[in-house]
Amino acid sequence: MTATDSPQENQAAVLQPGGSFYYETRDIPTLQSDRDVIVKVIATGLCGSDVHYWQHGRIGRYVVEKPLILGHESTGIVVSCGPNAQGLAAGDRVAMEPGASCNSCEFCRSGRYNLCRSMQFAATPPVDGTLCTYYRVPAECCFKLPSHISLRDGALVEPLSVAVHACRLAGDLQNRTAIVFGAGPVGLLCCAVARALGAASVVIVDIVPSRLSVARKHGATHTYLMSSESPEENAATLLAAAGLGEGADVVLDATGAEPCMNCGLHAVAPGGAFVQVGLGRSNVSVPIGQICDKEVVVKGSFRYGPGDFRLAVGLLQANRVNLEGLVTNEYSFSQVEEAFKNVANRVGIKSVIYGPGVDAATANSI
Amino acid sequence: MTATDSPQENQAAVLQPGGSFYYETRDIPTLQSDRDVIVKVIATGLCGSDVHYWQHGRIGRYVVEKPLILGHESTGIVVSCGPNAQGLAAGDRVAMEPGASCNSCEFCRSGRYNLCRSMQFAATPPVDGTLCTYYRVPAECCFKLPSHISLRDGALVEPLSVAVHACRLAGDLQNRTAIVFGAGPVGLLCCAVARALGAASVVIVDIVPSRLSVARKHGATHTYLMSSESPEENAATLLAAAGLGEGADVVLDATGAEPCMNCGLHAVAPGGAFVQVGLGRSNVSVPIGQICDKEVVVKGSFRYGPGDFRLAVGLLQANRVNLEGLVTNEYSFSQVEEAFKNVANRVGIKSVIYGPGVDAATANSI
Amino acid sequence: MTATDSPQENQAAVLQPGGSFYYETRDIPTLQSDRDVIVKVIATGLCGSDVHYWQHGRIGRYVVEKPLILGHESTGIVVSCGPNAQGLAAGDRVAMEPGASCNSCEFCRSGRYNLCRSMQFAATPPVDGTLCTYYRVPAECCFKLPSHISLRDGALVEPLSVAVHACRLAGDLQNRTAIVFGAGPVGLLCCAVARALGAASVVIVDIVPSRLSVARKHGATHTYLMSSESPEENAATLLAAAGLGEGADVVLDATGAEPCMNCGLHAVAPGGAFVQVGLGRSNVSVPIGQICDKEVVVKGSFRYGPGDFRLAVGLLQANRVNLEGLVTNEYSFSQVEEAFKNVANRVGIKSVIYGPGVDAATANSI
Amino acid sequence: MTATDSPQENQAAVLQPGGSFYYETRDIPTLQSDRDVIVKVIATGLCGSDVHYWQHGRIGRYVVEKPLILGHESTGIVVSCGPNAQGLAAGDRVAMEPGASCNSCEFCRSGRYNLCRSMQFAATPPVDGTLCTYYRVPAECCFKLPSHISLRDGALVEPLSVAVHACRLAGDLQNRTAIVFGAGPVGLLCCAVARALGAASVVIVDIVPSRLSVARKHGATHTYLMSSESPEENAATLLAAAGLGEGADVVLDATGAEPCMNCGLHAVAPGGAFVQVGLGRSNVSVPIGQICDKEVVVKGSFRYGPGDFRLAVGLLQANRVNLEGLVTNEYSFSQVEEAFKNVANRVGIKSVIYGPGVDAATANSI
Repeated sequence: MTATDSPQENQAAVLQPGGSFYYETRDIPTLQSDRDVIVKVIATGLCGSDVHYWQHGRIGRYVVEKPLILGHESTGIVVSCGPNAQGLAAGDRVAMEPGASCNSCEFCRSGRYNLCRSMQFAATPPVDGTLCTYYRVPAECCFKLPSHISLRDGALVEPLSVAVHACRLAGDLQNRTAIVFGAGPVGLLCCAVARALGAASVVIVDIVPSRLSVARKHGATHTYLMSSESPEENAATLLAAAGLGEGADVVLDATGAEPCMNCGLHAVAPGGAFVQVGLGRSNVSVPIGQICDKEVVVKGSFRYGPGDFRLAVGLLQANRVNLEGLVTNEYSFSQVEEAFKNVANRVGIKSVIYGPGVDAATANSI
Repeated sequence: MTATDSPQENQAAVLQPGGSFYYETRDIPTLQSDRDVIVKVIATGLCGSDVHYWQHGRIGRYVVEKPLILGHESTGIVVSCGPNAQGLAAGDRVAMEPGASCNSCEFCRSGRYNLCRSMQFAATPPVDGTLCTYYRVPAECCFKLPSHISLRDGALVEPLSVAVHACRLAGDLQNRTAIVFGAGPVGLLCCAVARALGAASVVIVDIVPSRLSVARKHGATHTYLMSSESPEENAATLLAAAGLGEGADVVLDATGAEPCMNCGLHAVAPGGAFVQVGLGRSNVSVPIGQICDKEVVVKGSFRYGPGDFRLAVGLLQANRVNLEGLVTNEYSFSQVEEAFKNVANRVGIKSVIYGPGVDAATANSI
Repeated sequence: MTATDSPQENQAAVLQPGGSFYYETRDIPTLQSDRDVIVKVIATGLCGSDVHYWQHGRIGRYVVEKPLILGHESTGIVVSCGPNAQGLAAGDRVAMEPGASCNSCEFCRSGRYNLCRSMQFAATPPVDGTLCTYYRVPAECCFKLPSHISLRDGALVEPLSVAVHACRLAGDLQNRTAIVFGAGPVGLLCCAVARALGAASVVIVDIVPSRLSVARKHGATHTYLMSSESPEENAATLLAAAGLGEGADVVLDATGAEPCMNCGLHAVAPGGAFVQVGLGRSNVSVPIGQICDKEVVVKGSFRYGPGDFRLAVGLLQANRVNLEGLVTNEYSFSQVEEAFKNVANRVGIKSVIYGPGVDAATANSI
Repeated sequence: MTATDSPQENQAAVLQPGGSFYYETRDIPTLQSDRDVIVKVIATGLCGSDVHYWQHGRIGRYVVEKPLILGHESTGIVVSCGPNAQGLAAGDRVAMEPGASCNSCEFCRSGRYNLCRSMQFAATPPVDGTLCTYYRVPAECCFKLPSHISLRDGALVEPLSVAVHACRLAGDLQNRTAIVFGAGPVGLLCCAVARALGAASVVIVDIVPSRLSVARKHGATHTYLMSSESPEENAATLLAAAGLGEGADVVLDATGAEPCMNCGLHAVAPGGAFVQVGLGRSNVSVPIGQICDKEVVVKGSFRYGPGDFRLAVGLLQANRVNLEGLVTNEYSFSQVEEAFKNVANRVGIKSVIYGPGVDAATANSI
């Protein structure tokens, strides 16, 4: 079946509350509004949150109480479109923004739809995700991929949008200096985006030397291996090594780890910005004195909002961000459990699972 | 001697490293640049930082290593002006901004002079403060008092400017809801300024009922007495009691106390702002998950910057902020030690010490 | 029939292309989405654009090509609500925001719904307006009136929102100086809002002395009668008379008249903002040299956007804006043509037409 | 004499009021504040304003009433420094920001020093410019050149900073579309900067085909030759040719020509920004209806402000802007009159005049 054939079956990999996956056939989604689009899923990247739901059954107030389809970093091919799905047509290769907001509340109307209280977000209980054959999204959540980006690599548009959102929250990056904590997919993409948005230098920080080694391909101008010293000492060493003087203009933390946040707040310059991208514990100790004395702005970054996917795709279109080498592991749809196990064991950088019946050749072709 | 007589003697109350005050005669300051102004000090409010230097000999990296004159919340009468001290003349009644920035570094040139690394700030070691007869400031640090504000009450222009700076950092306050933690002078002024800048409601929070009782005169629409429950529970109770639904748009913490900060971060609305005004411990535990999930912006507020004194005076000029009842204790210059002791014992709201030879009648006349 | 009876007939005053009004019975609108609300119209203010469509049959690209119901400044009583019309119930007294945007385009999603290309705006051809018995709007366009605002005066919430939008575009108004050109309803409301948002002084300018006379009740601190002199001379005289020195921080033009715009651009201070609220000719001559040398920011203001109605109602709720005396003329639904004639002849400040079967007592009761 | 020899003579090219140049020896400037720097001038670019003073004796209110040294786009080598000229040393190769602001007025203190009423700007009467051997500037106005930029090409840092300032006023350029009117030095640099700051496409517009031909080397993705049609027609043709749909997000006018401004205001997208960079007549006719209906923000751009020179040098340092081919004509100090004549006749793109005793080899060496 090619993507534009009429859909015949919707297979899904479903997480059982308690923790194992099973496969089942679900109803094929249908257009429910005139802006809806049905997409045949080609590739889905795995995210830490997917693995967390599998391992722990919950993230904060979101609990897996009934069977749930995971997956939200997906590309696919448009199968059918409502009459008002402007600019889209069957056959289009798209990355999907996985959250459908209500569009009418005050948050949505004022340009902050990521804070919508009625958000339907893929793979956040009880909303099913994209590890299935067909998925329905509103037209405004479909973004056509540049012709030189494969559907496999396009699965990175979602984490790239996370990085775009975080970097935009950081404010003007032109000619500024930045530090990024964490050399996982989001950290590497934050590096790449920070440079693309004009940062003169970016130091990437991690505790695993091998993770640092690839960072220079993705925009890092310096790398720093966190030591077991205090956050203040690590900050001082880092600043000296990278020639950052009094501090970096911007710090992005993609770890959620307390030592990284503390090092970052000691290393950020007076008047600088600190953006928390990664999630970790609910509570952490922070050097509030540093925040006050230096008038640091600390921002939480939550998913993405207006224009983030668009800019992410624009950066790819203009070759300002390079995805090469980031997808390190590929799995067929029958290997969902294996894929989750490997990601949980921190194998590779980014893993993708192909949609039901999709082979690597299709996903990798451009 | 009236204020415009030629100065004859400069008395000063000096803090001995180690902790006691003594009086001595210092050289009368002279004009050193064409924008300099010599002011005869009339009234000086005492601030927590003054008391802290007296009790502990240091605040963070600033250490009292040699004799230091304290005091930085002062009004006075202009005695002489450099030829380029525009808009000022001998006899002018002024509030003094107590920090002279270099004006030529990048921070100064880009509108963030409070972050100037060369700032000369009164009563921050080793820079002498205003507990003396005559003080020199650059013209841009003199703000004429409205005619209906006494030189005594004008000593509150400095903490009012702290509140103005913090409230401006909080962003648009028009028709917004706010919570202020701490009902001391700065907290009360934050209340008053938040309302003046348009807040529809302000809840003031403290642990001492008597401090809450005066808050309604200064703009608070609701009061909340912190209980010994958890921050989450306090936040929930506060929000319910004040009808704040999902949270307050803006939270200002003027306590620096960990329980307040935690309560505030649980009580701030999605997309809201949290401004840290008060100083406390160097490190505190914060609910970082709340900051991320709600995309809270957390800002440190450090002193004041461009336009803050001007707006503070403008709010007084237009009767949009009412200072009545805030100066509760007045001391003559010979009572410096007594004044510090009482402030350390939390007597009253704001205490002022008159300048050498100044009596209350002069300071209170308008 | 009371407002909450089940609707029985929908009368409408319809503009014939070519220019005369006729009355006819239209179908009663029905709920079409789960957020829709049906409102019984109580009072409708007349706007210059209504009169312009009546007299000229078009405004720019918008042409009255088929019968059109005019009116878009309306209040009413909620008759029925869709199940998802949150916070609304039959019997609610509301002001209506008269534009329903698509909510899903890029403009809508990024907080600029007033630029939505699919906007359905009441009384802009071919979309019918509110001069009828029943009108359907989405829930997000209904704003409950404060209890002390009558349904008659509530018709001013729409032009008040125009003023709010314009003043917000002007940027920070706290302690700033402003000039408003035009003492019609929008100009007077701009005055009132500028003061409410913190302006220290507002000069209102008109060519008709009687219009200036009421302006002081609505926030103007100074009035200026434009003379036949040049814009430069008028600007110089105005600035001197109002003590504005080098210029006003903000200028709002609610006339669209070339001499006013020129005077305003000469009178705005370096670094100031000029907001064009009123509409006039398509092309005007402006002193571009002034805009460049002073780095003036010139903004067009188009209707209203996120939060403007909410702030307008908030300003009324808190008694920060006073509507008294602005509605000068009231007409029953049978007097539509007379009302339009009088407005065209510039009778009074604001005229309202009551809905079919509504009498003044009902509309004026609180 | 090398640059670091002690200065022996200060030659100057002086404009006689009325119009001819003569050479004379002036006093060698001395350090007057502890931040002052004496620079030996190596190369000075000629600007339209220099030529205008020569031809017309005035620009607006600035009149050449006594002999004046022109020139303000200069590089040089530091000869001596005051003790507080931080980060600078004799021998440094620098571009000079040619305006010394007072640093203490409200404009300066709030980050808008280009609006300083006491600005001392080189070659704006009565302040002498840089067509001389030695020039004194404050340290904050010296910017070290990247090692791969010659002192000749460094003369372009000043117009590059004009472009940086204008592009920053335009707001976020990431992935946006832009149109630049005028393919002279400033227009070409606006192109280059807009692309460097992230613009996805830039259309450059001129009336001279040969000027358009070089634009693609400097960032233009499309070129458009203005026709004699109306501004509306030119706008429609341009938008269609460049695939810009409803309009460009940003328009920068570097011509000051009324037809260009009108075309630009018709071609800018709803919600877009229009920045006026070039100066032309004092008054122009503009389509105010377009500005209102589309809520366009129109900004005048005046010289440059905080961080602009720094970003300009940063863009060069990172090879994000390419200056190659822009300096087309070079003159020795004895050829001042010839240089001015040629620039007046629009010979080449940018002309530079070497300082007294400087030869091309020195200026071009890196």
